[in-house]
Amino acid sequence: MSHNSFGHLFRVTTWGESHGPAIGCVVDGCPPGLALTEDDIQPFLDRRRPGQSKFVTQRQEPDRVRILSGVFGGLTTGTPIALQIENEDQRSRDYGDIADSFRPGHADLTYHLKYGVRDHRGGGRSSARETAMRVAAGAIARKVLGTGVSIRGALVQIGAEAVDRAAWDWAVVEQNPFFCPDPATASRWEATLTAARKSGSSLGAIIEVQATGVPPGLGAPIYGKLDAEIAGALMSINAVKAVEIGDGFAAAALSGESNADEMRMAPDGTVQFLSNHAGGILGGISTGQPVVARFAVKPTSSILTPRLSVDRHGQDVEILTKGRHDPCVGIRAVPVGEAMLACVLADHVLRHRAQVPDAPTTTRLPRN
Amino acid sequence: MSHNSFGHLFRVTTWGESHGPAIGCVVDGCPPGLALTEDDIQPFLDRRRPGQSKFVTQRQEPDRVRILSGVFGGLTTGTPIALQIENEDQRSRDYGDIADSFRPGHADLTYHLKYGVRDHRGGGRSSARETAMRVAAGAIARKVLGTGVSIRGALVQIGAEAVDRAAWDWAVVEQNPFFCPDPATASRWEATLTAARKSGSSLGAIIEVQATGVPPGLGAPIYGKLDAEIAGALMSINAVKAVEIGDGFAAAALSGESNADEMRMAPDGTVQFLSNHAGGILGGISTGQPVVARFAVKPTSSILTPRLSVDRHGQDVEILTKGRHDPCVGIRAVPVGEAMLACVLADHVLRHRAQVPDAPTTTRLPRN
Amino acid sequence: MSHNSFGHLFRVTTWGESHGPAIGCVVDGCPPGLALTEDDIQPFLDRRRPGQSKFVTQRQEPDRVRILSGVFGGLTTGTPIALQIENEDQRSRDYGDIADSFRPGHADLTYHLKYGVRDHRGGGRSSARETAMRVAAGAIARKVLGTGVSIRGALVQIGAEAVDRAAWDWAVVEQNPFFCPDPATASRWEATLTAARKSGSSLGAIIEVQATGVPPGLGAPIYGKLDAEIAGALMSINAVKAVEIGDGFAAAALSGESNADEMRMAPDGTVQFLSNHAGGILGGISTGQPVVARFAVKPTSSILTPRLSVDRHGQDVEILTKGRHDPCVGIRAVPVGEAMLACVLADHVLRHRAQVPDAPTTTRLPRN
Amino acid sequence: MSHNSFGHLFRVTTWGESHGPAIGCVVDGCPPGLALTEDDIQPFLDRRRPGQSKFVTQRQEPDRVRILSGVFGGLTTGTPIALQIENEDQRSRDYGDIADSFRPGHADLTYHLKYGVRDHRGGGRSSARETAMRVAAGAIARKVLGTGVSIRGALVQIGAEAVDRAAWDWAVVEQNPFFCPDPATASRWEATLTAARKSGSSLGAIIEVQATGVPPGLGAPIYGKLDAEIAGALMSINAVKAVEIGDGFAAAALSGESNADEMRMAPDGTVQFLSNHAGGILGGISTGQPVVARFAVKPTSSILTPRLSVDRHGQDVEILTKGRHDPCVGIRAVPVGEAMLACVLADHVLRHRAQVPDAPTTTRLPRN
Repeated sequence: MSHNSFGHLFRVTTWGESHGPAIGCVVDGCPPGLALTEDDIQPFLDRRRPGQSKFVTQRQEPDRVRILSGVFGGLTTGTPIALQIENEDQRSRDYGDIADSFRPGHADLTYHLKYGVRDHRGGGRSSARETAMRVAAGAIARKVLGTGVSIRGALVQIGAEAVDRAAWDWAVVEQNPFFCPDPATASRWEATLTAARKSGSSLGAIIEVQATGVPPGLGAPIYGKLDAEIAGALMSINAVKAVEIGDGFAAAALSGESNADEMRMAPDGTVQFLSNHAGGILGGISTGQPVVARFAVKPTSSILTPRLSVDRHGQDVEILTKGRHDPCVGIRAVPVGEAMLACVLADHVLRHRAQVPDAPTTTRLPRN
Repeated sequence: MSHNSFGHLFRVTTWGESHGPAIGCVVDGCPPGLALTEDDIQPFLDRRRPGQSKFVTQRQEPDRVRILSGVFGGLTTGTPIALQIENEDQRSRDYGDIADSFRPGHADLTYHLKYGVRDHRGGGRSSARETAMRVAAGAIARKVLGTGVSIRGALVQIGAEAVDRAAWDWAVVEQNPFFCPDPATASRWEATLTAARKSGSSLGAIIEVQATGVPPGLGAPIYGKLDAEIAGALMSINAVKAVEIGDGFAAAALSGESNADEMRMAPDGTVQFLSNHAGGILGGISTGQPVVARFAVKPTSSILTPRLSVDRHGQDVEILTKGRHDPCVGIRAVPVGEAMLACVLADHVLRHRAQVPDAPTTTRLPRN
Repeated sequence: MSHNSFGHLFRVTTWGESHGPAIGCVVDGCPPGLALTEDDIQPFLDRRRPGQSKFVTQRQEPDRVRILSGVFGGLTTGTPIALQIENEDQRSRDYGDIADSFRPGHADLTYHLKYGVRDHRGGGRSSARETAMRVAAGAIARKVLGTGVSIRGALVQIGAEAVDRAAWDWAVVEQNPFFCPDPATASRWEATLTAARKSGSSLGAIIEVQATGVPPGLGAPIYGKLDAEIAGALMSINAVKAVEIGDGFAAAALSGESNADEMRMAPDGTVQFLSNHAGGILGGISTGQPVVARFAVKPTSSILTPRLSVDRHGQDVEILTKGRHDPCVGIRAVPVGEAMLACVLADHVLRHRAQVPDAPTTTRLPRN
Repeated sequence: MSHNSFGHLFRVTTWGESHGPAIGCVVDGCPPGLALTEDDIQPFLDRRRPGQSKFVTQRQEPDRVRILSGVFGGLTTGTPIALQIENEDQRSRDYGDIADSFRPGHADLTYHLKYGVRDHRGGGRSSARETAMRVAAGAIARKVLGTGVSIRGALVQIGAEAVDRAAWDWAVVEQNPFFCPDPATASRWEATLTAARKSGSSLGAIIEVQATGVPPGLGAPIYGKLDAEIAGALMSINAVKAVEIGDGFAAAALSGESNADEMRMAPDGTVQFLSNHAGGILGGISTGQPVVARFAVKPTSSILTPRLSVDRHGQDVEILTKGRHDPCVGIRAVPVGEAMLACVLADHVLRHRAQVPDAPTTTRLPRN
């Protein structure tokens, strides 16, 4: 069962509410003998941390992670790794007015109808704060994958404004507050988002994540397909409404000739693909090409514009969400998307070597 | 673990290869006391069955399902329901030439690299034939959901040609070989697909599936989110490359005001949403509105045009896929998508009542 | 969830009722490339088959197993292996009188209360017939374990009469109808069981199963302990009421000195234990010593002596179970116990190599 | 997967080492709306707490539990409940001499062989300290079960000395440091254990746990059998080597007439059993009678008598375990056994109502 757990052999269970004393997770199944300290995790949390620019929530959380178990003498021991972050800047008073009313676009009503009782403060369990633990777990997943696998992400669209893929530069991604790979678009977004923020509005976004160095063979034929699990993982991130792999929706408009990636033998005896429409996955199993996924994040529902809603007593109300919010939650979803991709891949590395311990790690084929 | 199983409490395990003696599935966790015979399942299989028009594969399979266990005196007994379909029209000779070569866009290479050994005939386990068992399981899932929940689907795009949503008529869906909801578009597609078929090409497609009458409260907060599991389920269908819920990717271009669905109290004491951008799911939990999902199917990779590839001996080859193929596999994906949606919902109905047996089944709130 | 599935990475799902058309199972997660045909499975089924002596049920079932998927060219393909056995000798008429009454010691009442509807014929799903599929799956598990691991079992007690362990001879086990390792006891049991059978009674039994050649390191620390999963596996066999590992209940009466197995280095650099009170498992993880487990099977509840019971209409009745029954169901539980041990070990071999691919396969330690 | 998690719908994941900063668990799937505070959990921890008599370890741990999530306004919210206990009295120096040597009867060698690296301090993850979190989770499980279900346990044997069942008095259980139900035996054990402790030895024990008020219908037919899961749960407790249900091993010596529990209709329309050899479970499903299980705990392996062993460098050594140890770990296993039984039952209550929401809660049958 997977209410609050993710993965099978590399299994992450998260807990905690936005305004509770702490949030945490347990990573079970991590192989032993991996060097791991808080310093391996903290940089990824820092990328996701709130309060770093005026384009994200002003909540101040140092998000200091502690490892409480599963590591001894600087090495993982194969036992469960418990991670924990204290919540420090919990201004519950900001949320008093939403204790009874249901914010449009939020999980307030659905939690109320499902559970009858809910921790309304900052969205409680449904807060994007939970994603901090995904990022922490993702850092451990990267350790499992090893340095041969590289996972990175970028924001490719805010509102209706997409990046110029011809100008893509990974180095630029870390040089602007948007994880934008293209400097001209980053400037444009700055104006766009500032306008949205000033008008009390918000904007959606599209994120692209990629993994290179992925060995072939990860994934399973039918319901454990690598792409199916990536889709589920990315869709489980707060506010995500769409996921695609490789060409994604655009593949619908292609012909068979233009979509299927042709192959040739490379001089080194490996199979080379002449294109990557598939996004690195065929039949649910990795091909060895880069795994490429994109996902859409809806605009922040917490906005300063009054909205029609109802309250728990069955009265019509108008609601205006004060407090500290991201004008574009898609920005901080970049490190979260990377983390989820890392977790899915780590899980499948373990699953693959359980069933096929001697599987090839490249696409090399025998020459006759 | 979910290599070949799907769902948690309503759990479907499928088995079988395209050209083996039979395919089958085991449905575990179905509640007892539901009336069930082969006649409840066969009509859904007939919708997916090959050979029904010139726009789908000409393989002739009656796809007669047999119930081998779990039903007694016409009622489910709560024990596992085994379903089985004999494979009858297995022309393995059609596939002799792909025993050694890897068809572009297919799972041939990835299965070979992962497993070392594979049943190449018709794609073996990776064949879309497996989806017949999904459709069969979906028919049982509908029984679990009861008549109050209605699940249906339509093809909304072939190649670059989308339906006219203003002309949408569900009755039309069953009146053309494309599950097209709009008669004018159906005529257009007939020409388009005929041209594609004659030129030895193929086309992709987009399918929309909807569930109405879904009670609120289905889904779980974090990794058991209803939308995450729908995304994983749809992405696990052969050839699917993208999934979206509600407004999906289009939500990225919206502002917070235009995206979040406002609410008002209806005279009957229920909460009414003024729009459904969310596709019936907030915070991973159903709102009571229609659940709406779309998914993209890539163009059939088996085409009559020669393609560059390699063989298992590491030689460059040209490959041209003869045999009987769907010029647009998206067509027969409609009943499969419906079935997967039914299975996810049935699973969540069981999960929901395990944790919250007294949950409300409507959005009715107390009036003060 | 594990209603009708067993294991995690080597996962067995069974289906079928005693008097339905067939019984079957799906084995998912089996590694690819293992040689497998029906001939690898049939001998184990033949050991469990009814009708082979007057001491077991006279139901005549050839129990011919068919492999329906997952094997190609004589090798496992890594995809699910479906196995099936037709039910042939279903004399449903024998069971007409128990459609309405609940046999003492059987699952009739509990199925009725739980499910409301049940297939009463021969016990339906609760029949020991299901164990045939465990034996079939166990044959595949042995393939996963390889020839280095040997699993065998023996009956060590019938009624109050235990074998003479000093006279234990594994060769004798296959030479009598009781799987008795000691010829003198086998003769004694023949008289005892004949008397029980003639008086319309039945007897319980204790079975011992052993695995030798088990590598160290199988098992997981807490809830995936090897002994915990063996206990659950053996207790899931029909009519089993007790399980013990190593010294088992007798360990309660030992002192710490007499119970804990001491160790010395062997000349070959491996660790040798000086005794095996632990039954080959410490802290839930295999030590490399033989894994030893015993389990108790209650006496057959279907006897020819009238018993007090009730019927589904709430009336007191007397019930006398006619039909064909084992006077000691413990006998045929020997191959079932072996199979369950094989399945648990195979599952843990896969789990172990997922998490610790380079783990040592012997107890060899470095010499300084 | 269940390395460090237990249960399916009521799912407990524990983490932490004996001498790490803390231990904890996450309880996922708990229904919403249950009143829960630390005060509901602490009394059960206090029963298991070390240092309470001279017959248990002298480690001083207040074992104060904190609830970190999943409860709001005193009610469970349906989201994961994180529990945590700080480790306070971690005298790691006591364990310096076992960093390199493997204590007989402990998991030292098996962890070393499996993982290569281990937290040796106090046994690390394999320490019985982990069972504190089982007891904490068990307290929540009791909330799920409600006041109608009563779970209690007693020590029924220490070494070779069993209680006098004719003198059983539940009130006595809480009045002596052994959870002994019979005052005369408690006195005898005091002398026996004092002698064992003084001689640097230890003793094994047998515990009995019972649940009354269990509704019929809990459990599942084959691999989710209630007795199978109880067996796995109890066997997963540290040092447990044997488990039995109802008459257990003694059932082997019974005849069918003496073992199967007869039934009569009671005046109130419920089915009454005339005996309870089955221990409240038939066919893996609860009958409504008390569920009765017993398990054996081996003698503490940490004793003051020198023992033969080896070290990680492959040298023969003698080892004598200093530090603070229980002369009979079976004593503190009583609340742990109760907790595991509570967790299994809570899990099955949720599973049962998922599949059969309208199941009867008593054995009442219709009268004609």
